[in-house]
Parts: sequence; structure tokens; C-alpha cells
Amino acid sequence: MTITPSSHDVRLHAIGTYLPSTRESNLERGAEFGFQSDFLKDVLGFVARSVKESNELTSDLCVRAFEDLCHRSRLKKEDVQLVTVVTQNPDVKIPHTAAIVHNKLGLAKPCMTFDISQGCAGYCHAVAITVGVMETTGLDHAVLFTCDPYTDIIDEHDKDVALLFGDAATASYFTRDGSGYRLIDANFGTMPDSHECLRCEDLLKMDGRAVFNNAAKQVPPSIIELLQRNQMAVDDVDRLLLHQASKYIVEFIRTRLEIPPEKAPFAAADYGNTVSSSIPLLLQECVSSCEFEVLLLSGFGIGFSWGNNLLKAVRAET
Amino acid sequence: MTITPSSHDVRLHAIGTYLPSTRESNLERGAEFGFQSDFLKDVLGFVARSVKESNELTSDLCVRAFEDLCHRSRLKKEDVQLVTVVTQNPDVKIPHTAAIVHNKLGLAKPCMTFDISQGCAGYCHAVAITVGVMETTGLDHAVLFTCDPYTDIIDEHDKDVALLFGDAATASYFTRDGSGYRLIDANFGTMPDSHECLRCEDLLKMDGRAVFNNAAKQVPPSIIELLQRNQMAVDDVDRLLLHQASKYIVEFIRTRLEIPPEKAPFAAADYGNTVSSSIPLLLQECVSSCEFEVLLLSGFGIGFSWGNNLLKAVRAET
Repeated sequence: MTITPSSHDVRLHAIGTYLPSTRESNLERGAEFGFQSDFLKDVLGFVARSVKESNELTSDLCVRAFEDLCHRSRLKKEDVQLVTVVTQNPDVKIPHTAAIVHNKLGLAKPCMTFDISQGCAGYCHAVAITVGVMETTGLDHAVLFTCDPYTDIIDEHDKDVALLFGDAATASYFTRDGSGYRLIDANFGTMPDSHECLRCEDLLKMDGRAVFNNAAKQVPPSIIELLQRNQMAVDDVDRLLLHQASKYIVEFIRTRLEIPPEKAPFAAADYGNTVSSSIPLLLQECVSSCEFEVLLLSGFGIGFSWGNNLLKAVRAET
Repeated sequence: MTITPSSHDVRLHAIGTYLPSTRESNLERGAEFGFQSDFLKDVLGFVARSVKESNELTSDLCVRAFEDLCHRSRLKKEDVQLVTVVTQNPDVKIPHTAAIVHNKLGLAKPCMTFDISQGCAGYCHAVAITVGVMETTGLDHAVLFTCDPYTDIIDEHDKDVALLFGDAATASYFTRDGSGYRLIDANFGTMPDSHECLRCEDLLKMDGRAVFNNAAKQVPPSIIELLQRNQMAVDDVDRLLLHQASKYIVEFIRTRLEIPPEKAPFAAADYGNTVSSSIPLLLQECVSSCEFEVLLLSGFGIGFSWGNNLLKAVRAET
């Protein structure tokens, strides 16, 4: 299905981000687990991880990303009609973190608030949800937050997860004018019998082999399927922004799709796998410059599930 | 904004429900707190509360609601392309409960799964989300679950909350043919400085006065606003299905809107406030008979937030 373009269509106009400045070096910690530095740099790909302050909540990180968004766009607080927070690490069980963010930002009363629990494919799910709600209910201004600070759910002695995850937050502004990217199409999937490959009651447990195998087997054909049903080929994609699960999996999917390295970057070496924030962190500069015509976003992980978004540039007529 | 009707539009076609058969009597427990039986029957309105088995998880209750849905519709498991679970009581922190339900039901791989954290207005939010995602991404078959079993987060000695909540689950089937109800329009809001009126880290804490005052002040005008922008009056609504927070609040909102009692039922006396499930429990028979032309759903609570859905009947041409 292709959305018919129109000058009033919803578009992703700007992205604000927040990466805590504190970094923990993996090169120092890796030796404890017997990892060679070559493995950390070239396979895992994470040399350091961003770490939030221990008293910073998910809502606090979202507020920092919103501040960056306000510097990068002319978003007015009083215009915001929809706040969604993609997280599996809410401040508390009740209320939803979006209501807390709404309050901390001093947003207006006519504003829809809800959280989306999804995981590493959460951003791709949330883009479809945000655009869908805006189109169905006629909203003009929405901010979609992502924030999954895993520092709080990682056993630092568990070698399967201790060196992977970084803390971050992002805030994506969707509106109906200005330059940006329109959602053209999206597809999604959930693998049967795989929901235990990533699991957390109090601390995260990961079966890394199962996660890799699912990503390697499911993600490339799902990307091809999305392109084909839009009469497009891999060469038509100007940038493939993959969830930064590890350098190895990004390289694997890119190579399988025969995409050159400059079109599918791995850029998380200095901050780690930031879960639902990994894709919007990559996307920020693309949205700001609007220099590429076609973007493909692909997230995968918890569930095991995946989602792909096909985006097309729309440039302001002014 | 009004959606232009079309024979292929998304509609709510059927609802399956699950109310645990176990009931706890409020008349017995109420005496401990010094509540008169008249207060329980006529003000609170809950004579008994439905209680799940202690080992039943949110995903288990969803599976029971799905079984009821399968008896009530011709939904085929292999057709389901979207599973959402509205809950603030997931089985675990990670993965989302929708992925666990997807696995327990044996659904197919091309299926989007995510949870929505919202609360008592969750169903109205989720209807707009589900319809929006289906329209934006071209999906034909979706199942929207609600399940917030509060038994696990209630201090039974806390008189503010101990006699209010019942356990339940529902499963709403959205598709593009057959009789049902189309979403015509929806509106939403979140009250500044009120997110602490319902809060849960481990156990639910409620400021009942703040919740009542917010509901009494915000909900009636939000309903009027939704009707007016669709050129409708209160008299055009055949059934107003209000979140069953208490008999008193249902009566208060109904009276404020000058709606006769038969058009805005309170029906939860025997099972309690089932949070996100309260509205679909009322809606089940309406959707099944499709006898009413215009329905208005109104949910309110945690956040403090609210949402209204305006639905219109669509009858199969066969």
C-alpha cells in the first residue's frame, strides 16, 4: 500500500537526542571477561557505553531530548497534541511515563499520552503508530520519545549483556509542514517460539545466539519484501538505518543485502546499543539535512520481532 | 475531522471477553472498613469483584478472551496481522505481553506486536491506535486485547482501593468486512499536575477525590466538544459507554450531559472496575447486535487522562 503524497501529509520534521556524556570503557571491562580488544572493536563494535546518572529517570532523559529538539525546530510546547514514549523501562508501573513527561514539560491539556512497550524495533513500530493516530484523528503536532536506559536492568557480571547497552533518549517531532520524511509503507513481524530470547523480570537475560539467528534469518527478507511491494530495489535506498545491535549484525545484514558500507552505517562504537533509541540517533542528521531521497529504517530484537519503515523526503516549498 | 465512509473501511467487528467466575463479595469486606451496604450498592456500585486465579498471568487472561472471540466470529488465527495488548500489568518487563500472547495463540510470523501502557482510558486510545495503524500500513485483521488484573497490585487493607477493582480481559477484532462499528472521530486529553493521583511502584495508591474531581470537570466538556465538531448533539448518541469507575461517577457524568439512564448504563456491580476492560465489556453486546446507530465511548483515569471515541454502525450488505 502506498500513501498518496499530499502537501498536508504528516512528516517527521526534526529529532532531538540526548546521550549522557559519561562513558564506561569496554576495553577495560572486556579484559575481565576474557574478550580481546579486536573482538570488542571489530565484532561487538562497542568500545564504550553511555551511562546515565543513577538518579536520572526515563522521564528525565526524555526531557533532555526534548530540550535538544526545541533547539533544532520551531516546535511550540502549546502545540503538542500527542506524546508517546517508547520504553520497557518506565519510571513506574503506573502512570505511563508519557503522562509524567507531559507534566515535566508543562504541556497543554488537549494532549493524548501513552507509552508503547516494544523494544529494539520500538521506533519503527512507533513511527507507524504516531503517523496512524495523527492521520486517523486529525492531529497536527506529535512528539515521539524513545528511552530504554538498560543500566538499571543489567547484571554487570553477566558477560552476555554487560558490554552491550548504552543509555540514551530521543524526541521525534511529526507535523504537517516543513521539510522532513513521510512514511510511505511499513511491515512488521513476530517470530513464533522466540519470546524468551530476551527476557527481564528484574535483570535482563539474553540468548545471544538465538537473537543473532533470528535477526540474520528474518530481517533481510523482510526488507526485500517491503521494497518489492513498493516496486523498489535495494539500490533505490539512499540510507539503510539498521538497529545498532552489534557491529557484526549490522555488517551481516548489510552484506546479505549487497549494500555498500557508506549506505548502512554502524555509528554506535562510542555509546553502545541504545535499544529503541538506536535508529533515531542515526536518523537525526538525515532528517536535519533532508539530503537523501529514500530512507529505510529497520529495527529488530525483543519479541523476537522486527519492523521496517520506508520513508521518502518531502521538502518545504518555501 | 470525519473519515469518509467506504465499504472497505476498518471496523470493530466482534469482541470476546473473559471475566473470572470467582467473585469476592464487597458486602462482607466492606464492614471491615465501616462502609454501609447502601454506600457499596448505590455510590460505589460494586457489590462483588471478579478475581483471577493467583497463578493466572495477563497473557493467560488474554488467551481466554481470544477463545471467546473465536466463538463469536469467523476470525482465523492465521489471518491476524496485529496484536496489541493494553496493560500496565504485563507478564514481565521484557518482552511485551503481546509477543507472549502471540506465542501462546500460535499466531503467524507476519504479525506486528506491541503493548500500550495507558490505564482506564486505554481502550479509547487503543481503538484510535489500532485503526490508525491498520489504515496507514494497510493491515486487514487486528486483535486488540485489554487486561489489567489489579489483584496483584492492591493492598487489601487500603480502603481507598481494596473494594474497587475486578480482573478481566477482552479481545476486540478489527477487520474490513462484515457488520460492526467504524471510528468516526476521537479526542484525548491529559491534565497537567495530576499524574500522581493514581500511582503504582509496587502497590496502587489512589487519591480518590482528585480522580473524581478531574473526571467530573474534564470528561463532560470533552464529550460535548467531540460531538460538536462532528455536528452532533447529545441526543444523537444512542449509547454512551462510560468507563465504570464507580456508579457515582457514571451517574454524575450521565446527569451532567442530560442523558437518560438507559442510554448510559452502569453494569459492573457484579465484577468491579476492570480498568482498560470496562468499556469493551459493555461494548460486546452492542457490537454483536449492531442495533444502535451511534455509540460514544469515554474512558478516563490514570494520567490523569481521558479519551473519547465516536463510532457509527456499518452493516454488512449480505
